[in-house]
Amino acid sequence: MTHTSSSTKNSIKVLIVGAGAIGAFYGGKLAQAGAHVAAVCRSDYDTVREQGFSVKSPLGDFQFVPQPTLHSINEYKDTPDLILVALKVLPDLDVAGLLQPVVGPQTAILMIQNGVSIEDSVAETFPNNEVLGGLAFVCLSRIGPGKIHHIDYGRLVIGKYPEGPSDMANRLRELWNSVDVKTQITPSVVRARWKKLVWNAPFNPMSVLCGHATTQDLMESEETVKLVRHVMEEVVQVAKAAGHELPPNTVQENIDDTLKMTPYRTSMLLDYEARRPMEVEAILGTPVHLARRLNVRVPHLESLYAMLQLLNQQNLKT
Amino acid sequence: MTHTSSSTKNSIKVLIVGAGAIGAFYGGKLAQAGAHVAAVCRSDYDTVREQGFSVKSPLGDFQFVPQPTLHSINEYKDTPDLILVALKVLPDLDVAGLLQPVVGPQTAILMIQNGVSIEDSVAETFPNNEVLGGLAFVCLSRIGPGKIHHIDYGRLVIGKYPEGPSDMANRLRELWNSVDVKTQITPSVVRARWKKLVWNAPFNPMSVLCGHATTQDLMESEETVKLVRHVMEEVVQVAKAAGHELPPNTVQENIDDTLKMTPYRTSMLLDYEARRPMEVEAILGTPVHLARRLNVRVPHLESLYAMLQLLNQQNLKT
Repeated sequence: MTHTSSSTKNSIKVLIVGAGAIGAFYGGKLAQAGAHVAAVCRSDYDTVREQGFSVKSPLGDFQFVPQPTLHSINEYKDTPDLILVALKVLPDLDVAGLLQPVVGPQTAILMIQNGVSIEDSVAETFPNNEVLGGLAFVCLSRIGPGKIHHIDYGRLVIGKYPEGPSDMANRLRELWNSVDVKTQITPSVVRARWKKLVWNAPFNPMSVLCGHATTQDLMESEETVKLVRHVMEEVVQVAKAAGHELPPNTVQENIDDTLKMTPYRTSMLLDYEARRPMEVEAILGTPVHLARRLNVRVPHLESLYAMLQLLNQQNLKT
Repeated sequence: MTHTSSSTKNSIKVLIVGAGAIGAFYGGKLAQAGAHVAAVCRSDYDTVREQGFSVKSPLGDFQFVPQPTLHSINEYKDTPDLILVALKVLPDLDVAGLLQPVVGPQTAILMIQNGVSIEDSVAETFPNNEVLGGLAFVCLSRIGPGKIHHIDYGRLVIGKYPEGPSDMANRLRELWNSVDVKTQITPSVVRARWKKLVWNAPFNPMSVLCGHATTQDLMESEETVKLVRHVMEEVVQVAKAAGHELPPNTVQENIDDTLKMTPYRTSMLLDYEARRPMEVEAILGTPVHLARRLNVRVPHLESLYAMLQLLNQQNLKT
């Protein structure tokens, strides 16, 4: 099935759930590509309702005015073709329950979020709906109410959960690519999640635990580079035990890519500094618990997990 | 050889090198016991020169006026019977070189410091002098210039380095015990250092890495207790490989003792908060490097070490 560009543009109704930096950026680009995009936006609701989002980006600055901006998902009176979930992954949030009121029989759900196994409960709750996973390789920062700075990168990897082809994925790729968001389709988004976790599992936690460290700080100390490698190797082992073997050069490639990056402050570090909850369970807890079930030894991952979960509590307490 | 109490009190000339909280407290108690105590004091020199140290203590508050207070070791014009080294253990400090000008043929050197192997270079440099190690089990805090708060505990364990009996140790035990500082003599101070490291290696670093955590915070999270145990077990393994087997119940005893403690902020945490250098090498670097030489796997210790050494750099940088 093919769509002409204009029919695609006119036909898709998107609801963004979690219009933080990720949701606003990728939702805004869909709107730019012609989609009809509504957004549930909690933290900057007043500003966004009045002025929309203002995005500073190397792809060209743009405004994104959701149609409409909602304070709660229950205010949405339509049935979306696509729900784009871009919420932070926190353990006490029941995403499936949250989406329930607006999921129609044809609604697809795309979850652009960190971690592994994050689609499980949504896919279970809506067995007849198409669920997609999405990975954003992007550096975004909220610089004020409704103001987003797109600093670098921006590539998306999307795919049907747990695997297989998807018309919706093809359609979204066409839309995003038409506005310069490089979008690839993966035949196994679960494997793609593990692959991304190889980078996230060491760098996100260590940027926080090592004292506001950039990727460059972490790559300049011999001992931290060793630890980064160990954590990456453990993630590769857990992925393998879970049935998702990654290419043998995965660790080295991630190290090499990081050395080439502009010094980067991870999203977890930004959360920590703003005293927001960090995605401890999504990034570390899930792989640690899975490793324990599968009898994979992950002492470095466990060390990071133990300390980060307490640090997260301490950070929210004070 | 025995001494009467009064001859002991009158005969011993002590020079404190590093009159921070530890040096001032234990040196002050020696002065109280009748010893003649001089002190090299850098940070609070002016205050201490004028007023001495003022110590608030459950053993009874007291003043300690060093005779004299020196700004540099080179100002000391006598030959001490005992040098009490209570400096922080930092890698770029050459303690042996520092002591050289004042070590006479009969001078004993007692090092009340954290870590293992800290006596090595001093013992090598002064092969004909008696070198003693000392471990302070005490909670002290500097609360202002020349002002020390003795919060809790206070026990000392001292012994000839690397092992064996010592007249000087007996003499010091007599002096300290006479002023209520419980002092025990150990036949193997090296082993005693490993034993103390079993506690220090997890709790000092984790109090910092986990976000200003007290011992109680660390004992309330299941994951951090697990990590504490793993780190303790690794220290026990390294000690064993280095020839110092610790009792089989060492780890459990340390856990039980910690549960009984008043919530406690470690000395490393106090250093971190004051942006002073932390004893990273003494507490973690030395055991990690030794473990690598002895082929003992210490993934949890290595994780702490990697992160703490970068955190220390970051903390001093900003």
